[in-house]
Amino acid sequence: MPETISATISPEGSLEILSQHEVNRLRDTSQAGLHDILRRCALAVLNSGNPMDDGLALMETYPDFDIEVQQQDRGVRLKLSNAPAEAFVDGRMIRGIREHLSSVLRDIVYVYNEIQTQNRFDLSSGEGTTNAVFHILRKAGTLKPGLDPSMVVCWGGHSISREEYEYTKDVGYHLGLRDLDICTGCGPGAMKGPMKGANVAHAKQRRYPARYLGVSEPGIIAAEAPNPIVNELVVMPDIEKRLEAFVRLGHGIIVFPGGVGTAEEILYLLGILLHPDNADMQLPLIFTGPASAADYFTRIDEFLVYTLGESVRNLYRIIIADPASVARTMRADIEKVTEYRRSRQDAFHFNWRLTIARDFQEPFTPTHEAMASLALRRELPKHELAANLRRAFSGIVAGNVKEQGLRAIEAHGPFRLHADADLMAKLDALLTSFVAQGRMKLAGEYEPCYTLGNAG
Amino acid sequence: MPETISATISPEGSLEILSQHEVNRLRDTSQAGLHDILRRCALAVLNSGNPMDDGLALMETYPDFDIEVQQQDRGVRLKLSNAPAEAFVDGRMIRGIREHLSSVLRDIVYVYNEIQTQNRFDLSSGEGTTNAVFHILRKAGTLKPGLDPSMVVCWGGHSISREEYEYTKDVGYHLGLRDLDICTGCGPGAMKGPMKGANVAHAKQRRYPARYLGVSEPGIIAAEAPNPIVNELVVMPDIEKRLEAFVRLGHGIIVFPGGVGTAEEILYLLGILLHPDNADMQLPLIFTGPASAADYFTRIDEFLVYTLGESVRNLYRIIIADPASVARTMRADIEKVTEYRRSRQDAFHFNWRLTIARDFQEPFTPTHEAMASLALRRELPKHELAANLRRAFSGIVAGNVKEQGLRAIEAHGPFRLHADADLMAKLDALLTSFVAQGRMKLAGEYEPCYTLGNAG
Amino acid sequence: MPETISATISPEGSLEILSQHEVNRLRDTSQAGLHDILRRCALAVLNSGNPMDDGLALMETYPDFDIEVQQQDRGVRLKLSNAPAEAFVDGRMIRGIREHLSSVLRDIVYVYNEIQTQNRFDLSSGEGTTNAVFHILRKAGTLKPGLDPSMVVCWGGHSISREEYEYTKDVGYHLGLRDLDICTGCGPGAMKGPMKGANVAHAKQRRYPARYLGVSEPGIIAAEAPNPIVNELVVMPDIEKRLEAFVRLGHGIIVFPGGVGTAEEILYLLGILLHPDNADMQLPLIFTGPASAADYFTRIDEFLVYTLGESVRNLYRIIIADPASVARTMRADIEKVTEYRRSRQDAFHFNWRLTIARDFQEPFTPTHEAMASLALRRELPKHELAANLRRAFSGIVAGNVKEQGLRAIEAHGPFRLHADADLMAKLDALLTSFVAQGRMKLAGEYEPCYTLGNAG
Amino acid sequence: MPETISATISPEGSLEILSQHEVNRLRDTSQAGLHDILRRCALAVLNSGNPMDDGLALMETYPDFDIEVQQQDRGVRLKLSNAPAEAFVDGRMIRGIREHLSSVLRDIVYVYNEIQTQNRFDLSSGEGTTNAVFHILRKAGTLKPGLDPSMVVCWGGHSISREEYEYTKDVGYHLGLRDLDICTGCGPGAMKGPMKGANVAHAKQRRYPARYLGVSEPGIIAAEAPNPIVNELVVMPDIEKRLEAFVRLGHGIIVFPGGVGTAEEILYLLGILLHPDNADMQLPLIFTGPASAADYFTRIDEFLVYTLGESVRNLYRIIIADPASVARTMRADIEKVTEYRRSRQDAFHFNWRLTIARDFQEPFTPTHEAMASLALRRELPKHELAANLRRAFSGIVAGNVKEQGLRAIEAHGPFRLHADADLMAKLDALLTSFVAQGRMKLAGEYEPCYTLGNAG
Repeated sequence: MPETISATISPEGSLEILSQHEVNRLRDTSQAGLHDILRRCALAVLNSGNPMDDGLALMETYPDFDIEVQQQDRGVRLKLSNAPAEAFVDGRMIRGIREHLSSVLRDIVYVYNEIQTQNRFDLSSGEGTTNAVFHILRKAGTLKPGLDPSMVVCWGGHSISREEYEYTKDVGYHLGLRDLDICTGCGPGAMKGPMKGANVAHAKQRRYPARYLGVSEPGIIAAEAPNPIVNELVVMPDIEKRLEAFVRLGHGIIVFPGGVGTAEEILYLLGILLHPDNADMQLPLIFTGPASAADYFTRIDEFLVYTLGESVRNLYRIIIADPASVARTMRADIEKVTEYRRSRQDAFHFNWRLTIARDFQEPFTPTHEAMASLALRRELPKHELAANLRRAFSGIVAGNVKEQGLRAIEAHGPFRLHADADLMAKLDALLTSFVAQGRMKLAGEYEPCYTLGNAG
Repeated sequence: MPETISATISPEGSLEILSQHEVNRLRDTSQAGLHDILRRCALAVLNSGNPMDDGLALMETYPDFDIEVQQQDRGVRLKLSNAPAEAFVDGRMIRGIREHLSSVLRDIVYVYNEIQTQNRFDLSSGEGTTNAVFHILRKAGTLKPGLDPSMVVCWGGHSISREEYEYTKDVGYHLGLRDLDICTGCGPGAMKGPMKGANVAHAKQRRYPARYLGVSEPGIIAAEAPNPIVNELVVMPDIEKRLEAFVRLGHGIIVFPGGVGTAEEILYLLGILLHPDNADMQLPLIFTGPASAADYFTRIDEFLVYTLGESVRNLYRIIIADPASVARTMRADIEKVTEYRRSRQDAFHFNWRLTIARDFQEPFTPTHEAMASLALRRELPKHELAANLRRAFSGIVAGNVKEQGLRAIEAHGPFRLHADADLMAKLDALLTSFVAQGRMKLAGEYEPCYTLGNAG
Repeated sequence: MPETISATISPEGSLEILSQHEVNRLRDTSQAGLHDILRRCALAVLNSGNPMDDGLALMETYPDFDIEVQQQDRGVRLKLSNAPAEAFVDGRMIRGIREHLSSVLRDIVYVYNEIQTQNRFDLSSGEGTTNAVFHILRKAGTLKPGLDPSMVVCWGGHSISREEYEYTKDVGYHLGLRDLDICTGCGPGAMKGPMKGANVAHAKQRRYPARYLGVSEPGIIAAEAPNPIVNELVVMPDIEKRLEAFVRLGHGIIVFPGGVGTAEEILYLLGILLHPDNADMQLPLIFTGPASAADYFTRIDEFLVYTLGESVRNLYRIIIADPASVARTMRADIEKVTEYRRSRQDAFHFNWRLTIARDFQEPFTPTHEAMASLALRRELPKHELAANLRRAFSGIVAGNVKEQGLRAIEAHGPFRLHADADLMAKLDALLTSFVAQGRMKLAGEYEPCYTLGNAG
Repeated sequence: MPETISATISPEGSLEILSQHEVNRLRDTSQAGLHDILRRCALAVLNSGNPMDDGLALMETYPDFDIEVQQQDRGVRLKLSNAPAEAFVDGRMIRGIREHLSSVLRDIVYVYNEIQTQNRFDLSSGEGTTNAVFHILRKAGTLKPGLDPSMVVCWGGHSISREEYEYTKDVGYHLGLRDLDICTGCGPGAMKGPMKGANVAHAKQRRYPARYLGVSEPGIIAAEAPNPIVNELVVMPDIEKRLEAFVRLGHGIIVFPGGVGTAEEILYLLGILLHPDNADMQLPLIFTGPASAADYFTRIDEFLVYTLGESVRNLYRIIIADPASVARTMRADIEKVTEYRRSRQDAFHFNWRLTIARDFQEPFTPTHEAMASLALRRELPKHELAANLRRAFSGIVAGNVKEQGLRAIEAHGPFRLHADADLMAKLDALLTSFVAQGRMKLAGEYEPCYTLGNAG
């Protein structure tokens, strides 16, 4: 049994001034069905020091952990029972973790109250969805007016080799030297490396306060808890809004080697950028990794060209084993983004102009049925195919690490995907290469959560 | 014709990060019927350098003034046509005025969108009303956690003698020397003097940033434009919410000589403090003025004792011609407030614990009919009588300076009030003494907007 | 007898970290002969709330006042005995006054230790003197790198009419609206008005922190105590270094009506600007006052043209009764100063490039002998004549208000000045006009401290 | 040949406002004989990214490197020729390195001008020496009033094993979690590890700005360049003043495993603490390392008890392989230091009360003659023996890494030390154990720079 501590703490920041009504709603999280999600997210955050990336296991390690919101006239207190002792130093909670805890509470409650209950946003429309994303981010304080574009979104696997991890640190270091900030999906691996590297470089460049922005979601936070460097944390309600947050917040995007999740992110982004409305959009995209990852990107590149056509290559660059060049290129490209936005009087803090088709916004719930009915045929419009491939990959991620997906697989066996023969072969080859490269699982041997069948 | 300037400016602060939806709503202020109120409030703020306290006259002086909200991807711009030139220096709008303009826009739109349209708050209940007041104040950034109690609300006439004005400055000076901040209803006279005095004292004490909080309402802002020292401005939707804002924000209250508006404020506050739930409430209240104002407070005091009973005197102190003593007393009493709140874990920034009966929250629209039907009888419960007297005074203020009231009087002649004979005599004496002391009108001879009749 | 308080206080700012050696030197101020000067300056500062402008009278009003520096391992404490009660609020010294007290202590001790005792600067050379001025100002923290030029030096009488005082406030207000800061010689009248006016305008423009720089000297501080708005105070060792501080710190200079001291300042500045090395120097100079002061500047202008030649008019402008125009002109001229300094990579915070001839740097002690032997002849080089006229006016100021001068006059009767006949007539007319305009004395009838004789 | 860059840069901070006189002195560094020392220190700082710890080699790697101070009216510029390219990012010097460069320039010039040339301090007296140390530190801005004690000095080898390095990071991490700051001698190994660890912990605890104070000296900076985390750098003129800086600045001291330099530091500190005047001094001292370093501290402990007596053990604790316990103990002890200083009104920023005997202040120049004549006899007073042992170790450090020492050894062969037989045996055993543990040299096999002989 790991050591635990029970304590009552005060939250931070935007939770300091609440109306009694809001306090009541916070306190009623249990009635509203929020208690379970709050408990799981809180535990993930409290456990951030520990490298345990299995959400189910985490809950089982701390079966008695609980969190309760208590009312006080001057605000709320959080009563924690049997919390991981490592979140505390000499009985006082580490401040960064306290902030993360407050962020989790804020976002879960805000999303529930404002987005879901009050129907302030029409989530069935593209505009309403984007508005919801905007409001969640603004509530979280991540939209800061007056800052020049500097936010580099880094995607990639959370379970990568030591060499690849060191490479992501190197890239982060060179980005940081050029006064760029980092946004990732939280968690270890390629989500932590760039922040660590940038942190050292920011110290060298005396960049205070630098931004380390983590964008998570309830289903993934337990597996990919925010690392301690994250100084802004947002929990988006689902993967689609999380991805939208990334592409509207980021001024440039770097993709490191990863697994299916990374492939999902790539498909998502390219699917969007291929939209005719986005033809002149400036959004720099670089795939990069150490020499040993060259093959990984070759395969991705081939798969993309096969499925989305030769012209897709105009949308990204592949740079192998050259962190300084990656950073220099990104810095120069972000200057162009700045120029572009300025010339059109666009906001720096949120890319309103980017068009995101409904296909990419609608939440996809990877049931066995939904996965089985995905149309994966090459003759589909590029954009539709990209959307469906994105969903397929999303389902595989869920089957690998998200609690809901894990339970579905436990209950019904692997997902079944259907594609036409040639595409299936390419897809199989890609996924098999991921397995061969050990990119599909955190520990132990990978047991696929899917099978591939002929679309026919 | 006064000099005017047309210009397009950017708003400040909370209007910097808006969603496209919000921008649209701002732009649509005309459709929503907000355009007229926005135009009037904006003009009042832009005119703040000029000592003109007649809302109707102001609109007539600048008949071509207009304000239009324009959309841009990066936010909004305000297009002003034919605005008073004095709001500008060499073509650039004075920053404080730009802030006030942004505050006005923010509050009008927020109140319309969140309070009135979306039905987020049940304004027919006490709790819902208080919640609405809280949300407007929080939106305006006036609720600052972490500050010790220091906010002294100053009430009194906006049209007072030079001697009384200098006295309010003196009191403000001595409050400022003791690191106290000032909240008033904006405008000249007793609303400006304490801020000016405190400003000098704060400079001496190097108190940065000191707070000069102005709480106004759309119907009054034209007559009592925020003076330039105000560095936080909130426009509450009506007089009742404005009064509630004062008593929940303030840690102590000082009343200077004034006219009917001041009497309204006194009745409002005492009516609340007399509520049994507030029996142990700490809310220091001091009536003060120069020696020449002693008679004014004697009459108020007598009227209060007559209507509300001898024990009402426990709720206030009268200090004549001793600014240092006023400030010293207030400082000491606010220490007790701090102690009281701390011991009960009450918030410092909003007095949730104060009970305000519905009588004092419900907006009173002073039509001729409503005024005529007010029950003004001494045998009523103290609390009810206080509420009705408050309404009567409120109606007289409207008839004196608010646009709606002025128009009603123009159309239908003076309001008719009914009271039982003895009370009527006392009331008449009080109001007559106000007229005699020149406290009823800004310029020229006072023409009463009311007549008094027997209740029988 | 005025009320007094005895208390022990901690100084502020640069006196917080002292070596034990420095503490000892502070403590030994009495032995070093500094005690008397420290006592007089401290009393002046403590008395700043009171409008008493007679140094001798002040010492007599508080005969038992004393100040003692006490040692503590953590720094120093100042023990005050029988200090004016008005420097305190409820037993705590007003923070601004505490800062002024610390400034006085810092400058007196620094000047004594570093400038006079240790011979770090060769005060017999121009370069050494300028270096000393620079070091005193840097030690006081008044040289702030990174700020754009914005410092307007205001000169003028400390004893002026209400109308003129209001005018200086108006000018200060319009300067403040244009984000300009104010530097004066401390004290009331034209030294206080511009600061008060600017303070209101800075509040309107939200200029924080604005600068209100007072430059005084030990001999004058008692008569012209720093008004409370001053938030940077420097005590220069003598009038010559004080004047040099003004012209090297200021980015532009405004002269309001005054008496002989003002004439001294004008002669000083024009004498410098006439130096050939300063031919292309940018240092805007404006003489201004209300309509009633037009005659004053006409006479000054005539006297200047008579003594220094027609071309002197290129160095200044006279603007009567138009505060906004004064401020607009100054703002535009300071833009040119900025351009000029930038193009030559000159510092903004100190005008190194300005050449000041030794005549204007050497301290002039106005003994009867020195005054009598001043060469005041029109055939002298312009520059030399300006220097001597400056000295003559300086002596008259001393005879009017400085303690040493007052005592000399008490002992030996008025100073005797010699000039050639025509110049003497002009000088007499000028001085007589000052007397006629009531510009020579603070209260009562003016008894001249000088007589004029033929140079022959 | 490594890549180099030539560039002209502006210094930072205290060099921004200089008098022309000071600029001249800076420019004249060559004439004053400062050019060589400035060039060497600057190169060390510019090379801080590279792990090269051999001062001679460094100069040979960049033979054409040069630095020149250029005058400008607005300040100085530094012209660098053929500087290591790694100090720059895309042609701009890394800001932290620019700050270090400014610090080096500031300290070298200040020490030369104020300490050595002007004779402001009597360096032949204890008080004068301490004063000089104080002034250098104050000039560098390291004495910050108002901060609670939090500065932990970490000593230990700059060339330690990976395991020991990781351990120092762990200790730093746990110190940082407890809001403690780090001061070291700059350089790699035990000087870098605690800062790196603390940096991560400070990020977790949101401690901004945390302090990473490096105290170096000209003779050592090339071998132990400040790592990039250092955000305050001071270059003391010699090892004795550097050691005095450590013990007067630090609120607690931690010793990690090291070599002779570490032994020198231990002897220095214990020699001081054994002084009777320091009997009740609070200065917590902990020796700590991983399990593998237990033997190292056992030998040190034995040697200390042998030479300084059993009671010396009261002055330190040895904690093996428990970073959290080290940090917890230090935190608790520093609370006691705070209490102690507060009760005596001692400064927090400089330990004036600590008595340091002249033996420990006088610079020791390790010539062959001086080393040979050191009295190393056990019957000496403890204090004297500690002082001489400190000198002996100091000489060995010089022979190992300082340029002057290296040249002396090259020219005349190893130093010869004389001790009485038993002590010699103990000393030999200790030094031999250092060699055996690989603690005497950075790379390659260690060739002793000393021989031990009988004192007889």
